[in-house]
Amino acid sequence: MAMGPREFDESDFLELLGARLPQASGAIVLGVGDDAAIVDVGAAPNSSRVIVTQDMLLEGIDFRIAECGHRAAGRKAISKSLSDLAAMAATPLAAFVAVALPPGTTREQATALIDGLLAAALPAGLQIAGGDTKRSSQGLVIDVTLLGRPHPRGSLLRSAAREGDLLLVTGPLGGSALGRHLDFEPRVAVATKLADAGAHAAIDLSDGLAIDLRRLAAASGVGAVIDAAALPIAPAAHELAARDGIPAFEHALGDGEDYELLVALPRDALDAARQDAALASHLIVVGEVVGAARGILLRDGAASREMPRLGFQHRFGTAGGDRA
Amino acid sequence: MAMGPREFDESDFLELLGARLPQASGAIVLGVGDDAAIVDVGAAPNSSRVIVTQDMLLEGIDFRIAECGHRAAGRKAISKSLSDLAAMAATPLAAFVAVALPPGTTREQATALIDGLLAAALPAGLQIAGGDTKRSSQGLVIDVTLLGRPHPRGSLLRSAAREGDLLLVTGPLGGSALGRHLDFEPRVAVATKLADAGAHAAIDLSDGLAIDLRRLAAASGVGAVIDAAALPIAPAAHELAARDGIPAFEHALGDGEDYELLVALPRDALDAARQDAALASHLIVVGEVVGAARGILLRDGAASREMPRLGFQHRFGTAGGDRA
Repeated sequence: MAMGPREFDESDFLELLGARLPQASGAIVLGVGDDAAIVDVGAAPNSSRVIVTQDMLLEGIDFRIAECGHRAAGRKAISKSLSDLAAMAATPLAAFVAVALPPGTTREQATALIDGLLAAALPAGLQIAGGDTKRSSQGLVIDVTLLGRPHPRGSLLRSAAREGDLLLVTGPLGGSALGRHLDFEPRVAVATKLADAGAHAAIDLSDGLAIDLRRLAAASGVGAVIDAAALPIAPAAHELAARDGIPAFEHALGDGEDYELLVALPRDALDAARQDAALASHLIVVGEVVGAARGILLRDGAASREMPRLGFQHRFGTAGGDRA
Repeated sequence: MAMGPREFDESDFLELLGARLPQASGAIVLGVGDDAAIVDVGAAPNSSRVIVTQDMLLEGIDFRIAECGHRAAGRKAISKSLSDLAAMAATPLAAFVAVALPPGTTREQATALIDGLLAAALPAGLQIAGGDTKRSSQGLVIDVTLLGRPHPRGSLLRSAAREGDLLLVTGPLGGSALGRHLDFEPRVAVATKLADAGAHAAIDLSDGLAIDLRRLAAASGVGAVIDAAALPIAPAAHELAARDGIPAFEHALGDGEDYELLVALPRDALDAARQDAALASHLIVVGEVVGAARGILLRDGAASREMPRLGFQHRFGTAGGDRA
């Protein structure tokens, strides 16, 4: 969806909120700014950390219920938050689901919504522990909060990538708007194994590699080089390219809602990680972490240029989008 | 707001959800059905429990932004969830706030919303640790998830009232629609002291004493007698009575959104609790817990009758409402 002229938007709100919050302290180990927060719920002197993430999905923004149905909406709501837990390498524990149901919602639709929630939650070992239901005067709203247990080696923060790390993605990119944004497998198990293998940092690819890589690099105070030839391009990115004339390669770099992970892994950990057959197919090396001074680069053969500032917000199969 | 003929609504959804959930196990100590859930986030064999509650507020349902302003909406969103933590006697730790902002939201409005969130959170020792912001194609939506630390003596469940307990409320009831539903003090500190004093059970009064008392009694498998003469009637309930001709007494029993607590306290704990001056003014004995066979009674002098099935959903100062 093309944006109008600059208006007050969601990113401004986060900035405003961050500026007005008192310094995180006490129970808040990690606040706003990563894929999820870390809260210490233990009573002193015992520490007990929990990973928490929250995502709100709205009719007309994140799904069109008339096109995708209630089951797909429920499934996406849980899967999107699971992807955030995966980006921390957390183990899913409990889901809280608040739903606002528009007038005229039928029992069959409500059942389909619940089935979609459960279809995403159960395979991930996630239980639905509570929530809230309201009547909506407008469209369907689903807000999901997930609690997870941190990985014993520590969480995969955005801020922990180090110069020399390899950059990997866990699957092919681009074209998610054609359907995968509703039906993807959150990389929970893959992330746990990557943390076992010694990964340093991760972010989930919700706004496109070009944008999310910049976020990871900025949080870590590093630069990055992506090898154009190494980029895994999803078949849907080619399909979209055939429709809209934008190169599949740009779709892979710029499209949102891939819900794969971008991971910084120490170079010497790669061979061991590849021994795990279930993990190996998700270890797609796309580049490396470099010094901050080099910036964010796209390398094409011998030549390097600044990473293009792509950043689609593909949705509902439309090919247009915001380019920041 | 008067309801039309029976339609699929929020309580049906909760029932449907509950019926389809697998039995709570593992990390879920207490699932759907109380004021909040209890999740054990400790890694075996260590237990570490966290109290979690979630509430979604919507424009046109929980507030009318043009009348109350953004600050009041933000404040209510946090306070409503704090009231649920209070009903468990939990200590507030962390808030996650998802907001959907309608088009045209100004920076001033967003700032007022944030100030309202903080005005409710900070006095309760609650930190905002994360959340989500979206653009809404419709009205403002605020979804709040709170994490709290359980009381060391255990949580005040709805299911733990015992025959012989006194029933107390923590403040005057009724007429909240005239303004208090937007501006109330969640009984967090009072609840902690009540748990210190040995209270057995609690529920927060969100749907009116008549309905919430039935919920507490049903969960505990007990009956209850309320003394009509002991019921504390808020000035706003009298004001509303003068407008709509419904007795103030019925407003006190039936109006929603009091956000006081209904507490079951062992009779022998009352005197000690009254020694605390800050607590004493919130210890309003309204009745007692009796055997289940006696049902839910309203005692007026020597005569007792079944508790009237009142249950307003007062909002926005309108006096009409649902009576189930």
